[in-house]
Amino acid sequence: MANDREPGSQVFKRIAIFGVGLIGGSFALALKKAGAVQQVVGVGRSLASLQRAQQLGIIDQIAGSVEDAVRGSDLILIAAPVAQTAAILSAIQPHLQPGTVVADAGSTKADVVAAAREMLGDKLAQFVPAHPIAGRELNGPDAALTDLYVGKKVVITRLPENAQADLDLVAAAWRQCGAIIHYLSPAEHDAVFASVSHLPHLLAYALVDDIARKPHAERLFQYAASGFRDFTRIAGSSPEMWRDITLANREAMLQELDSYTGQLARLRAYLQAGDAAAIEAVYANAQQARHNWITAIESAEKQRKDGGD
Amino acid sequence: MANDREPGSQVFKRIAIFGVGLIGGSFALALKKAGAVQQVVGVGRSLASLQRAQQLGIIDQIAGSVEDAVRGSDLILIAAPVAQTAAILSAIQPHLQPGTVVADAGSTKADVVAAAREMLGDKLAQFVPAHPIAGRELNGPDAALTDLYVGKKVVITRLPENAQADLDLVAAAWRQCGAIIHYLSPAEHDAVFASVSHLPHLLAYALVDDIARKPHAERLFQYAASGFRDFTRIAGSSPEMWRDITLANREAMLQELDSYTGQLARLRAYLQAGDAAAIEAVYANAQQARHNWITAIESAEKQRKDGGD
Repeated sequence: MANDREPGSQVFKRIAIFGVGLIGGSFALALKKAGAVQQVVGVGRSLASLQRAQQLGIIDQIAGSVEDAVRGSDLILIAAPVAQTAAILSAIQPHLQPGTVVADAGSTKADVVAAAREMLGDKLAQFVPAHPIAGRELNGPDAALTDLYVGKKVVITRLPENAQADLDLVAAAWRQCGAIIHYLSPAEHDAVFASVSHLPHLLAYALVDDIARKPHAERLFQYAASGFRDFTRIAGSSPEMWRDITLANREAMLQELDSYTGQLARLRAYLQAGDAAAIEAVYANAQQARHNWITAIESAEKQRKDGGD
Repeated sequence: MANDREPGSQVFKRIAIFGVGLIGGSFALALKKAGAVQQVVGVGRSLASLQRAQQLGIIDQIAGSVEDAVRGSDLILIAAPVAQTAAILSAIQPHLQPGTVVADAGSTKADVVAAAREMLGDKLAQFVPAHPIAGRELNGPDAALTDLYVGKKVVITRLPENAQADLDLVAAAWRQCGAIIHYLSPAEHDAVFASVSHLPHLLAYALVDDIARKPHAERLFQYAASGFRDFTRIAGSSPEMWRDITLANREAMLQELDSYTGQLARLRAYLQAGDAAAIEAVYANAQQARHNWITAIESAEKQRKDGGD
């Protein structure tokens, strides 16, 4: 089977997925489409989700137990809300054999690495922490998409203990989903995503909740329009998942939140003083920075398309 | 000409538009398409914009002076950035004849009403303040769209001095653009839009500027993804226009900003204390409120389509 594939590609005999929703389900669908896996088994809290994932062709089999899932798999992907990672690693540990690599897909990394250090003991080297930067506001197996990861980044936060072969195995799996691999340290990762993802989620949830609690909330929502809709789109995401992420990345979140509230205090002072030039300077710098960012993304996207298939 | 039109529709002989960009240009295009105006004349700061608007068929003629524009027009629309409203009203006043109605399209209303009271004197009753709730991040005549206002709200903040016939005239013009007319007092209007539009703009600009000023800004933008893109879309808007709106609506903005920073302070305390239940309660309430809002919009949209053409 490996013969008719590109050099460097990887065919997995058996992959076990903990959590067959949007993230885990899309991973399985993409690998199946690429012909990169022979069998996918699913594990999870909800039998209904597992059955639905089987119906949808995301998994071939529901594992009877954690032990069944772990034994005989080349690769295990943990794709459950981050607060469950420690318990899942602890359940996996006794059954984990040499030659099996465990990866996760959590949106925070320092806490996941700490959990792995605590739970995996001398099997820690077999764990490769990673975070695919892709998502939708929808959850569950029905939200899974074959092309969710195409052109998206996956950040691997390697451990000093990891063997290069295991890192390459995880990278190869994600590349076969269409993703582009980046490397950061866990602390770098968490600081970056607190800033550009986790804090914006908190800010959007905070605004909608603040408005919803006002006595005249109904009138306010009546006049909310497309700008409000886009600004708050991320407040449509799973509260449980984002509660976990917010707490898992607490230190970086507090730092980013303090930086942002300092910025709001400055703007409040400009507004109070009627300082038009200072307000315009902030707005104009933001508009320009966003414009540069969008231009850079679009140019990278174009290069990828031109250089790729 | 009035014979072959629906009852209640209005044909304007001549409309003058101050500011032939996105808002004024789309108004002209929509009325022309509806056959609701015989001649549109344009006035503005930039001759190049006026010439472009004429090329695009938005206006039929460039007014040689404010006096030329005002005399002989049934309706005058002021569609320039709100900070210019007072100067424009002051220029219009000496030439304003009985029988001509002046409307504006500004995003703030209390300041516009105050400017009208100061500048128009005994001609105040001829001024109908209004705010079309529609926009794009693009500006200028080339951004104008014939259907920008279809299904969108226009809020009229009537003055006690306004004659019903003049209010009806302005409402009829906007209805012929496809808009739905709502009425609020200027103070109600400004409080509502501070909450659901002006504050979100300030928050989005503040976040992008905060990130752009960090020493590792380049890395941060590198990992920003679709959630960040939507959250900050409104920070792509005109800094000049939003500087003016922020300052024009200062009192309501300060109040909304203080409410929001109070909310952020509560969330910071929950985060510091690791209070998962309190964080989830805010996130879940926001998600639910947003879901209800989207459902209500979609149902209103459906009713409008089913009940309309």
